[in-house]
Amino acid sequence: MFYEVIKPRVGETDALGYINNTVIPQWFEGARNPIFKLLSPDSNLKINQWNLTLAKTTIEFHMPLEFGIDVEIKTVISRVGNSSLDVYQEAWQNNKKYVSGTAVMVHFDYKERKSLPIPDSFKQKMHMHYSSPSV
Amino acid sequence: MFYEVIKPRVGETDALGYINNTVIPQWFEGARNPIFKLLSPDSNLKINQWNLTLAKTTIEFHMPLEFGIDVEIKTVISRVGNSSLDVYQEAWQNNKKYVSGTAVMVHFDYKERKSLPIPDSFKQKMHMHYSSPSV
Amino acid sequence: MFYEVIKPRVGETDALGYINNTVIPQWFEGARNPIFKLLSPDSNLKINQWNLTLAKTTIEFHMPLEFGIDVEIKTVISRVGNSSLDVYQEAWQNNKKYVSGTAVMVHFDYKERKSLPIPDSFKQKMHMHYSSPSV
Amino acid sequence: MFYEVIKPRVGETDALGYINNTVIPQWFEGARNPIFKLLSPDSNLKINQWNLTLAKTTIEFHMPLEFGIDVEIKTVISRVGNSSLDVYQEAWQNNKKYVSGTAVMVHFDYKERKSLPIPDSFKQKMHMHYSSPSV
Repeated sequence: MFYEVIKPRVGETDALGYINNTVIPQWFEGARNPIFKLLSPDSNLKINQWNLTLAKTTIEFHMPLEFGIDVEIKTVISRVGNSSLDVYQEAWQNNKKYVSGTAVMVHFDYKERKSLPIPDSFKQKMHMHYSSPSV
Repeated sequence: MFYEVIKPRVGETDALGYINNTVIPQWFEGARNPIFKLLSPDSNLKINQWNLTLAKTTIEFHMPLEFGIDVEIKTVISRVGNSSLDVYQEAWQNNKKYVSGTAVMVHFDYKERKSLPIPDSFKQKMHMHYSSPSV
Repeated sequence: MFYEVIKPRVGETDALGYINNTVIPQWFEGARNPIFKLLSPDSNLKINQWNLTLAKTTIEFHMPLEFGIDVEIKTVISRVGNSSLDVYQEAWQNNKKYVSGTAVMVHFDYKERKSLPIPDSFKQKMHMHYSSPSV
Repeated sequence: MFYEVIKPRVGETDALGYINNTVIPQWFEGARNPIFKLLSPDSNLKINQWNLTLAKTTIEFHMPLEFGIDVEIKTVISRVGNSSLDVYQEAWQNNKKYVSGTAVMVHFDYKERKSLPIPDSFKQKMHMHYSSPSV
């Protein structure tokens, strides 16, 4: 499991007094950085070596996140297919799950604009980060 | 159907050269403003009268949106339940659908923190904006 | 003068009930798009032809902008130097100036990473958009 | 001095390949959270106790920040006046200063909508965070 702690910013709240829903995809994208690294040939985050594209996101908002309290983002790989994988993520506060979501990512050749099989080397590297969505 | 045109900003692109995926929820939220208005007692967008909360979003990224070309956001109400409704939205560019998504919104009493039935008056007002997801 | 109207989004407010200050640079950047076009060889917004870089921004917040009311962004070129230019911008609401700011932009060769003189052709094109900061 | 480390997100880059300029005010706002705390009666970040408003920001972009490398944000209080204070901030990468800026903040009574003197208790608390802009 990948784990990240976020300190909410004033600008991430909205007039209802809680973290605005559009902030979650930004936090979740940042927390997926280690997965880009896993699939990157030299383990660096070089943009011209990116080879994952986002196909679909689903996010469920269970409770509204608050300002002033650290948010924990938990990230696991919950499915690996031939050319795509699912990343399941949760945002926690006060030791409770507030938001959860799944991103479907496709291993992608940006030059040829077509999906690629997920290599065995990645499957091995990601093995330790694999988990069922119950985290 | 609600309709809005957006001119992408430089800051909405990312290093891969296209509109970043985290921008779409922001555009879609803005395009749902008219639906807040429909449920607002005096048809104003007063924050202390908000009574819709977001329960779930699903977004599918069919093609990457480009900078420099207007984006059309199309918004319909695709389902009305007892206390919740679905808003289906699409982002178009070059006369093609690039992104589509559904937001599940709940009619909500923020003071009591519980869901409310959707009133008949709203059902009548929203009737003309109702459509199946095929737009 | 360049002119743009913006409908604030819920996510652009913060918990104090007004538009968050970090939103203004995003609106101002979007409203500078026409200036990129003026300096672009074929008047298109092609990213690989960008030749303006931002050197400095100054923003003054006179009054907090409100949700639910259209915001007018007014943009003028307020100074042209040898290789840089100033863009002065204002955000209006309720027929009053709420925010004002200046962006110093440099005509820039991204490949060679050095500033370039501003060509006479641009000076002629931007003539009609030139104005003193009093707008 | 207040100190924070930020891992840039893909969505914070733009099509030119670097961190977009509109991201800096968001990072700087987040890094000013400890200053809100200093002025907050019970040292919590309760929104209804906020008493600082932003009057002016100046940001200088010396070099474009890169994705994939940690960014250090350094924050000092560089001036204290009767009712306002200056916060000077820098963003560092690769042990070099990439961005610097100053935010003028006003001690403010949101209910009465007028500025307040900065109390001596705050001046004492902030003493250890005071520094000249050379950091």
